[in-house]
Amino acid sequence: MEKIKIGIVGATGYAGAELVRLLLNHPNAEITAVSSISFEGQNIADIYPNLKKVCEMTLGNTELMPDCCDVIFAALPSGLSEELALQCAGKCVIIDLGADFRLHDQGTYEKWYGKNYKSPELHTKSVYSLPELYREQTKNCDVIGNPGCYPTSVALGMMPALRSGCVSTDGIIVDSKSGVTGAGRSLTQGTHYPDTNEAFAAYKAGAHRHTPEIEQTLSDIAGKNVKITFVPHLLPVNRGIESTIYARLIKDITLAELHEIYEKAYENEYFVRVEPMNKYANIKNVRCSNFCDISLHLDTHTNTLIISSCIDNMVKGAAGQAIQNMNIRFSLPETTGLTDVPPAF
Amino acid sequence: MEKIKIGIVGATGYAGAELVRLLLNHPNAEITAVSSISFEGQNIADIYPNLKKVCEMTLGNTELMPDCCDVIFAALPSGLSEELALQCAGKCVIIDLGADFRLHDQGTYEKWYGKNYKSPELHTKSVYSLPELYREQTKNCDVIGNPGCYPTSVALGMMPALRSGCVSTDGIIVDSKSGVTGAGRSLTQGTHYPDTNEAFAAYKAGAHRHTPEIEQTLSDIAGKNVKITFVPHLLPVNRGIESTIYARLIKDITLAELHEIYEKAYENEYFVRVEPMNKYANIKNVRCSNFCDISLHLDTHTNTLIISSCIDNMVKGAAGQAIQNMNIRFSLPETTGLTDVPPAF
Amino acid sequence: MEKIKIGIVGATGYAGAELVRLLLNHPNAEITAVSSISFEGQNIADIYPNLKKVCEMTLGNTELMPDCCDVIFAALPSGLSEELALQCAGKCVIIDLGADFRLHDQGTYEKWYGKNYKSPELHTKSVYSLPELYREQTKNCDVIGNPGCYPTSVALGMMPALRSGCVSTDGIIVDSKSGVTGAGRSLTQGTHYPDTNEAFAAYKAGAHRHTPEIEQTLSDIAGKNVKITFVPHLLPVNRGIESTIYARLIKDITLAELHEIYEKAYENEYFVRVEPMNKYANIKNVRCSNFCDISLHLDTHTNTLIISSCIDNMVKGAAGQAIQNMNIRFSLPETTGLTDVPPAF
Amino acid sequence: MEKIKIGIVGATGYAGAELVRLLLNHPNAEITAVSSISFEGQNIADIYPNLKKVCEMTLGNTELMPDCCDVIFAALPSGLSEELALQCAGKCVIIDLGADFRLHDQGTYEKWYGKNYKSPELHTKSVYSLPELYREQTKNCDVIGNPGCYPTSVALGMMPALRSGCVSTDGIIVDSKSGVTGAGRSLTQGTHYPDTNEAFAAYKAGAHRHTPEIEQTLSDIAGKNVKITFVPHLLPVNRGIESTIYARLIKDITLAELHEIYEKAYENEYFVRVEPMNKYANIKNVRCSNFCDISLHLDTHTNTLIISSCIDNMVKGAAGQAIQNMNIRFSLPETTGLTDVPPAF
Repeated sequence: MEKIKIGIVGATGYAGAELVRLLLNHPNAEITAVSSISFEGQNIADIYPNLKKVCEMTLGNTELMPDCCDVIFAALPSGLSEELALQCAGKCVIIDLGADFRLHDQGTYEKWYGKNYKSPELHTKSVYSLPELYREQTKNCDVIGNPGCYPTSVALGMMPALRSGCVSTDGIIVDSKSGVTGAGRSLTQGTHYPDTNEAFAAYKAGAHRHTPEIEQTLSDIAGKNVKITFVPHLLPVNRGIESTIYARLIKDITLAELHEIYEKAYENEYFVRVEPMNKYANIKNVRCSNFCDISLHLDTHTNTLIISSCIDNMVKGAAGQAIQNMNIRFSLPETTGLTDVPPAF
Repeated sequence: MEKIKIGIVGATGYAGAELVRLLLNHPNAEITAVSSISFEGQNIADIYPNLKKVCEMTLGNTELMPDCCDVIFAALPSGLSEELALQCAGKCVIIDLGADFRLHDQGTYEKWYGKNYKSPELHTKSVYSLPELYREQTKNCDVIGNPGCYPTSVALGMMPALRSGCVSTDGIIVDSKSGVTGAGRSLTQGTHYPDTNEAFAAYKAGAHRHTPEIEQTLSDIAGKNVKITFVPHLLPVNRGIESTIYARLIKDITLAELHEIYEKAYENEYFVRVEPMNKYANIKNVRCSNFCDISLHLDTHTNTLIISSCIDNMVKGAAGQAIQNMNIRFSLPETTGLTDVPPAF
Repeated sequence: MEKIKIGIVGATGYAGAELVRLLLNHPNAEITAVSSISFEGQNIADIYPNLKKVCEMTLGNTELMPDCCDVIFAALPSGLSEELALQCAGKCVIIDLGADFRLHDQGTYEKWYGKNYKSPELHTKSVYSLPELYREQTKNCDVIGNPGCYPTSVALGMMPALRSGCVSTDGIIVDSKSGVTGAGRSLTQGTHYPDTNEAFAAYKAGAHRHTPEIEQTLSDIAGKNVKITFVPHLLPVNRGIESTIYARLIKDITLAELHEIYEKAYENEYFVRVEPMNKYANIKNVRCSNFCDISLHLDTHTNTLIISSCIDNMVKGAAGQAIQNMNIRFSLPETTGLTDVPPAF
Repeated sequence: MEKIKIGIVGATGYAGAELVRLLLNHPNAEITAVSSISFEGQNIADIYPNLKKVCEMTLGNTELMPDCCDVIFAALPSGLSEELALQCAGKCVIIDLGADFRLHDQGTYEKWYGKNYKSPELHTKSVYSLPELYREQTKNCDVIGNPGCYPTSVALGMMPALRSGCVSTDGIIVDSKSGVTGAGRSLTQGTHYPDTNEAFAAYKAGAHRHTPEIEQTLSDIAGKNVKITFVPHLLPVNRGIESTIYARLIKDITLAELHEIYEKAYENEYFVRVEPMNKYANIKNVRCSNFCDISLHLDTHTNTLIISSCIDNMVKGAAGQAIQNMNIRFSLPETTGLTDVPPAF
């Protein structure tokens, strides 16, 4: 089989660099072009010395990419992918790691991102592709919106509980913690080492842009409007998201029964691992991998289901899931190129 | 004024070592005796080389302490302080940093700690001394139960909201994160550096022993039975607890009004700092200090009050608060010896 | 081609767990058996939850391994591999990640390890296999001593300079820093998180067991007796060794010329990357990979060559190099199964 | 006694912020004015929320400082303090934490800093004040150059050995490691959290500006010209410098005898602690304190003395030592305001 020709737009951002790392070991893909506005003309290994000898491509611009690639991964700030998608139309598949193709409702996008869709029609042809939920639609779609990191952890964590009807759709609380790569490569005081190390705080409480994306998916699963309270925190580690989700039980059910519902829901999903009872999901066990680890706990005295859902924000939360989507779109086994074993330490 | 003579029982545990650090700079106190079962006969500076030249006392046992001390700080595993308190009776004050004098209800203690009170009468004479709530009772009490670390962060974070009647006492969620010193000095696989570093997970979800202590205080504040859902997490930093608390609003009130309620509630409390609106409490700003920083946030679309409460688990969460209690008991200004400025980095 | 059947002895130590991680993605190898004294009978994924769904083998003992494996990796404390090697004789290859087959001179082994060789003859048939130096001997050898982590970083860092005759063999200083996994999985106070985090110190200055191993290799390269001063330090990161090596120049030579000597020396060595002039080797660029990154610097005012050599102590310093040795022994391309790209963050 | 009136120029840099932290607890000093070019007009507690309620001064400019202060601490980039010193002349004492008053030789300053002295006369009246070496000169001096962080660790580490004549002045190697606060508050890619965390590398090998300062002091101690090889490294912790120093023994002397020389040399120096034999200096034991911990080790097989010297780069390496200098200049006990006990964790 001929290799899929890959273009990576925004290859020097963290998501872009992670795509490079993972795709270099993908047996059916070949990186054809990498682009960067900030570093155009430079060797990518000068920006990321980990790539020395492994990938020494020159960073270019995006102009010719749609003509020479089978798929373009766009790792861009929100608002810039729509135009790129138009350029790709009829030429190649685009997988957008930004937010432009995540929200179905244009009004919601406008409210949270302060921009509107320039080509609403394009959005009707796109899919929000969280594979474990929507892979059927992805198979034939050329404009693929890759989910956000927090929403991935929450949707996978909540899906079986919501589907089962065991939990109330009211009053769901999502308390998430993300490693610092989630904030990107750009320099900020809040991610300056001495400000971040030995520190911990919430941010954008009740006001993070991933809120409507989470609600969109949970509502779709539940078949009715779901609102959540979402508070992210900055965690002094490089990688990983842990979301602790609180949902009120509305059925008389034991933890063992809930556990079985989860195991069954994910029995055919390679990338979702349900922890044994009494074990806790930990970001360290999914590091550098495309796994989502989920553990379930029950507070019987308040009748609250507690779900801990862990992913690597750069892999299942970004680049890995994007490759999983590419695999689906190009009819490859979903795990192709994504079988690295998470290091234990 | 003569200096208060101090005995520290369990001086080589983390809480004990922190008491030594803080009391060495207390202008009205003098460490008279330090004890340790594991290291009896050794120089404390051999165990804690940070104390070299500063405190080179020999670790002894507790036998003679009640006779030569004005106050004994007990930093012991739960279940061991009760007997020590009996030995102190009529001789000196005891401030217990363990759990033996925290729970008013014996049945609750038995349920969570698997032991019963040997001398129930002693407990009727003791006080659970979170100064900002109960300092009046502390002034004349000789058996002082020092609050737990998580409960301190939660009680101070919730007090003004609960008192104001603005929030529901149902469905309160407490999602807490603690630095690794909270797990103590004893070696465990879970606190081995390569297992803890770059890791994050919940533990004892809905089953942590601090749950009944938190509920006891919140119930007392609210004047009715309050149940909470409490999930602690292990945070890869040395010090600090951040508790994110979620409570449903039941009154029509703005964030600015809530903020004013908090500022007013704590206007005379030196150790509690309410963050300006739109700022977030961060464990780094309270490190090595007795401060509790609180920030308030409102999710208007779910009508949920979000409170972030930060303390240093070893100071306001243990040794510092114990010294604050000593100051109260010995009629000193509460801030005596506790004015170290938290380092910014 | 049939897959090589692998046995891993000591699979639950850090080196063993890293072997499992890497070998699971080796296209020509198959893990046949894993053993552990401490955890015999348990599922390895219960000890290392990162392996869940990926490798759920039961930990056994070593008894039958030589009969069912083509190669056994021994990740054992020093002194235990010799007997195992005897059991393997004539049955399978043994690659020892411990110290038993590193020192040619029995007297040196006795001096530093406090034991003597029980079967000296076995040692004459073994090879100390640092592939970049000794791969020819490895090709036909059945008892392969895998180099230590520090020695690997130093030998690769020094080889071209020593061979060129540019530096004095007197007065070489090696200042090394190792991540905490180098201390192993066993619990010690010195690797307890709050003791290790935000800490840094030297240990075993001038007295580390890797000293004779380093000297043995450097002497072999130089063709005369070389003594070094070696001081290791514990670095608060999980993985990585950086060795800064100081050697006095004895020829009139520029940095550019030295740089060329290094580039030439390693032009056919995939796993050794010489940094461009004015760049610094950094442990982060080799993390989770089998690379050794080397940078060269010249202090002209003291005529001192400064070499910074970085490896991942668990990969090129242990499991990765062991697999590289297996590849050599079984006539596979050396990079087989070792092409993972180091993550940038 | 009236309090010393303090002005801090550059109060929002890390050294400035540390001066604020320490001076707030100095019993004989009072911060009268704080200045900042970047944040003029703002409350310092808005920049450093750790100062909330503790110090809420408005950041001003330096114009009136010399008229209203007894001493000005200048925490400025190199080249800016000379002019300020001229403005202070005859009005107040200036203690410069930058490099402008460290090098006696103007040519050396020009070579390393690319500028020349505008007022060479001023420099003849200044003192390079490392108290343990030069305190007599500081007592009556109004222009005090505060030593650099690395040079402090090295000078204190080497002084007794050099004075004793036991070590060669040739071939001294200094391998130093510094926490990230040493790089300052300004944002750089190299101090962005995901680039710094889990990373380690050398920088400016043989080319750091502290080299001539170290050599100046060692030469002064030795009474002859001393050249060193100096390589700093960036350590992923907030605070602390560890310098491992290698010097060849030229006398027949035991480690015990060397240890005694060190203990004697520092017996009256409160801030220097010589570790017991066989213990290692560790940055964690001096954190947030003005201590310098020194341990001695001997590599007998190469006849090399190994000295490990640890300070907190922000305290003994900057703000603390500056206050120690102020105490000397104003005839206070040197330890005044500097008795905080380093936290063990």
